Amino acid sequence: MTRYTAPVKDMQFLLQDVLKVTEAGIPGYEDLDAGFTAAVLEEAGKVASDVLEPLNSVGDQIGCVLENGVVRTPDGFKPAFAAMKEGGWTALDCDPDYGGQGLPYVMGTAVGEIFVSANMAFNMYQGLTHGAYSAIHAHGTAEQKATYLPKMVSCDWTGTMNLTEPHCGTDLGLLRTKAEPQADGSYKITGQKIFISAGEHDLAENIIHLVLAKAPGGGEGTKGISLFIVPKFMVNADGSLGARNPVSVGKIEDKMGIHGNATCVLNYDGATGFLLGELHKGMRAMFTMMNEARLGVGLQGYAVAEAAYQNALDYAKDRLQGRDVTGVKNTTGPADPLIVHPDIRRNLMDQKSFVEGARALTFWGASLIDRHRRMDDAAADGLIGLLTPVIKGFQTDKGFDMAVQAQQIYGGHGYIEEWGMSQFVRDARIAMIYEGANGVQALDLVGRKLATDGGKHVMAFFEMVKAECKAHDSDDRMKPFTEALKLASKQMQQAGMFFMQNGMKNPNAALAGSYDFMHLMGHVCLGLMWTRMAKAALTALDAGAADKTFYETKIATGRYYMARHMPACALHLARIETGADPVMALAAEAF
Amino acid sequence: MTRYTAPVKDMQFLLQDVLKVTEAGIPGYEDLDAGFTAAVLEEAGKVASDVLEPLNSVGDQIGCVLENGVVRTPDGFKPAFAAMKEGGWTALDCDPDYGGQGLPYVMGTAVGEIFVSANMAFNMYQGLTHGAYSAIHAHGTAEQKATYLPKMVSCDWTGTMNLTEPHCGTDLGLLRTKAEPQADGSYKITGQKIFISAGEHDLAENIIHLVLAKAPGGGEGTKGISLFIVPKFMVNADGSLGARNPVSVGKIEDKMGIHGNATCVLNYDGATGFLLGELHKGMRAMFTMMNEARLGVGLQGYAVAEAAYQNALDYAKDRLQGRDVTGVKNTTGPADPLIVHPDIRRNLMDQKSFVEGARALTFWGASLIDRHRRMDDAAADGLIGLLTPVIKGFQTDKGFDMAVQAQQIYGGHGYIEEWGMSQFVRDARIAMIYEGANGVQALDLVGRKLATDGGKHVMAFFEMVKAECKAHDSDDRMKPFTEALKLASKQMQQAGMFFMQNGMKNPNAALAGSYDFMHLMGHVCLGLMWTRMAKAALTALDAGAADKTFYETKIATGRYYMARHMPACALHLARIETGADPVMALAAEAF
Repeated sequence: MTRYTAPVKDMQFLLQDVLKVTEAGIPGYEDLDAGFTAAVLEEAGKVASDVLEPLNSVGDQIGCVLENGVVRTPDGFKPAFAAMKEGGWTALDCDPDYGGQGLPYVMGTAVGEIFVSANMAFNMYQGLTHGAYSAIHAHGTAEQKATYLPKMVSCDWTGTMNLTEPHCGTDLGLLRTKAEPQADGSYKITGQKIFISAGEHDLAENIIHLVLAKAPGGGEGTKGISLFIVPKFMVNADGSLGARNPVSVGKIEDKMGIHGNATCVLNYDGATGFLLGELHKGMRAMFTMMNEARLGVGLQGYAVAEAAYQNALDYAKDRLQGRDVTGVKNTTGPADPLIVHPDIRRNLMDQKSFVEGARALTFWGASLIDRHRRMDDAAADGLIGLLTPVIKGFQTDKGFDMAVQAQQIYGGHGYIEEWGMSQFVRDARIAMIYEGANGVQALDLVGRKLATDGGKHVMAFFEMVKAECKAHDSDDRMKPFTEALKLASKQMQQAGMFFMQNGMKNPNAALAGSYDFMHLMGHVCLGLMWTRMAKAALTALDAGAADKTFYETKIATGRYYMARHMPACALHLARIETGADPVMALAAEAF
Repeated sequence: MTRYTAPVKDMQFLLQDVLKVTEAGIPGYEDLDAGFTAAVLEEAGKVASDVLEPLNSVGDQIGCVLENGVVRTPDGFKPAFAAMKEGGWTALDCDPDYGGQGLPYVMGTAVGEIFVSANMAFNMYQGLTHGAYSAIHAHGTAEQKATYLPKMVSCDWTGTMNLTEPHCGTDLGLLRTKAEPQADGSYKITGQKIFISAGEHDLAENIIHLVLAKAPGGGEGTKGISLFIVPKFMVNADGSLGARNPVSVGKIEDKMGIHGNATCVLNYDGATGFLLGELHKGMRAMFTMMNEARLGVGLQGYAVAEAAYQNALDYAKDRLQGRDVTGVKNTTGPADPLIVHPDIRRNLMDQKSFVEGARALTFWGASLIDRHRRMDDAAADGLIGLLTPVIKGFQTDKGFDMAVQAQQIYGGHGYIEEWGMSQFVRDARIAMIYEGANGVQALDLVGRKLATDGGKHVMAFFEMVKAECKAHDSDDRMKPFTEALKLASKQMQQAGMFFMQNGMKNPNAALAGSYDFMHLMGHVCLGLMWTRMAKAALTALDAGAADKTFYETKIATGRYYMARHMPACALHLARIETGADPVMALAAEAF
């Protein structure tokens, strides 16, 4: 009952008008001219609409099934996965040395959005493979890379990340999975991992598990953790598959959503593992992938909201109910379409202005990753480190809220599974939880990222916002943007000051406001994005762009965000400034 | 995996300390002394914990099944329903003339909360019966009352409300179900109704459908609508059951939640119906029940949040993860419980302060209904009319948000169905939609209720808030409450002024802010409730109450609400004051 069309025009606007990729000076970006990027996005859009989207509800309804230790993915997933591999989509931004196409990460991000919008659960199989690929690419030996990467680039083999155990998720220092060194340099891995997405399935010949475990001699807590490669099937010297490694599925979870992806309990019973990166430095190896993985989850937040929005918009235009209070619009029909009603508009504009802002932030974030990787730009690395918890936490919170709002437009039909809106809500919910629950993102932001390198990156961020506002000083048309952004940035600085002044005495005074700060900064980021988008749109209009309506719509959508969402910054600041007292007033027993 | 304990102490505080029921001067309230109300609530709590709550997840997992036109409710529902009947719980606040116990509505509300928290889907069978009972009680002939009410009071027969059709929900003027008058004074009802909760099931001997349909001669739109009693089985003169009426289940819906309740498509194929109330005045008959039905849904909003909160609190106390940054708390364990972390506290305090505030508002609302019914108090009727869309819309929005926050505390486990938190979220979602979607509540509030009787009721509300603040002027301890409440009330008045000044020229200027106004007023209402609760708690402490911690906790919880939630009023006002322009800027085609 749902449909999806890739928002190619909006993406092109970001790449060509806002990020101006060909002029950005990032190696590889010079090839991203408008014709090329449009061709890639349109082709991805076809795969998404024709192949992935029709399987989205199938995956939700059928789900994955575990029988005799084998997981069957939903009907149609196998041929669709084959089509993705054949089209080269799994290799898009991978290293050409291992069979990748070597496109910049920003292109992988744009295409990724399209696939996630069409079918989030399905796209996780290759998304997780990409994460494991990146870890091996960054930390593997030459032999490991040669052994695993080509097969992972093609998705003949898929990958997983194994962190969580039944008694520990956030607090990985507690983990119990053991790695015992063997005479041949390998390790025997023993323990139980839970919540392993794509942990077992029938889409690939082999599955490469990356597993956090404790090897002897590493000490207590997270210090003693190492990262291991544990293939489902051992790989022979000639690359052929050998014996089955003793890692088995205990069960697959019955979840609220993303039914098309198998979330597994994996039992490692002395499975053979190979150290990836340095011994006892597994956490560091994990963290180098964190920005990418969390950016990917932040993308899921708005990508699912985009799909929900497209359908809600269709419904709002089709469904006849009530009359426009300012005068009948649909004179030949029994009622006007929902979209005439101001409260429906409010709802749709909330969705539209969020999704487009979040897309801009995510694409910008991806370009920072490219800048770091391709130019070794430390400032870009510091900035994306600061933005990552915001992109992950803020965008998944809001993305979920927007999916709920999209569902609301359907009235009672939104609650009926057949219409597909419930799935968007249920699927979007997980993004707030996994890859570090959003409270942990807030903690990372306030407890760590603000102070990284002596606060250098957040200061650079403020300078960037200031410079952006200053650059448009002479353009009155930009005032609704720059004024709201300036105010919000000031409020964010004030919140930062509050943390500094009070957090030293009592860390809880800062931590009690961490969640609000994440949202406050999220609005500042989206305000910055809308300022840039508005300027790009005005520039295009000034240059006599053909599609006036498109650019005028961008500006109006941005003005909505500035007028109706940026005032949330004052609320977040007010909450932050209440400090620890209201939050911590009760003894635990008094609850 | 979930549990539920009735919050008897909190309810007693509201009834005895805040509403001071025995001194309220409402007929019937004089019997509600502390011993009596505690006994009723504790007994209801036992039924809830022992009988209803264990069936909550069963109902969710098994759901209802339609086979050969017969709907089977989940295992265990039949004996549980029998136990409810036997305990007299279905008759609690019904008219003694028809077998009811005649307790005030406020007691029915308190007991209702307990049952809804324990098992929302199950409780709908009797909840809808109560709605149909009220309609017949208010509008039926003596014969109709004698025929139907005793059986409905006992729930030997259950009831339904049939409004929605496939093409119309909110806009009932479009409905197509026909009522053809017969020679004997009855009508033949033909048409299709959808989303009929408890439309068919195996818990009762008979089902009494109340059906909106169009009889000839009523004119266009909602004016032509009448309300009909359509029994599943015809009732013979001696009260025995006769022929099956041709109303059949087309299908039961596969929904996001409340799986334990059968949501039916009902096909009326010339079914025999009897006019209830006046011909062509069916909408009016419906509206007299609306306050009660919407109050009931507003109750669901916070009642499900209460259940989710109780479980989240348990988890936060049990789950060991990370360390208190201000110093280790659980010195003998590997980590501290989640509840030491400020962001977990923020989350729990959000839930606690909302649920307790919403409960106070709902009980107060119920007492206004009692005041109207038992004393014919027109001011109380006007006030509850004004409050109803707020109770329904604000409380179900926030109740859902709080269930989502409760789920978040569980991390990944919150997403796994087995843990039960997903069900709370999925169940709570419907309350924002049915009985008038929340956007319609906002429209009702701003487009109708503010102006009812020349704005008399909203003015009375403002006066009441003012008087409340003034009454505590001399008590410095009340300042955190009265100051926040005064400010919020001023902001609400300012929003009202904006509507008046701009809405005449352009109704969209008011309607674009309607949703924000509903939330703004929701906070003012909860601020008023917390002010009253704080005063009651201080009074108890001053009088040397034994359980100091209980009353101090109330005050601290209230201070949290005032400090961290009331500032949302400024945000809502800021949005309202942007008027129609940002919301209506785009042409429908530009989306």
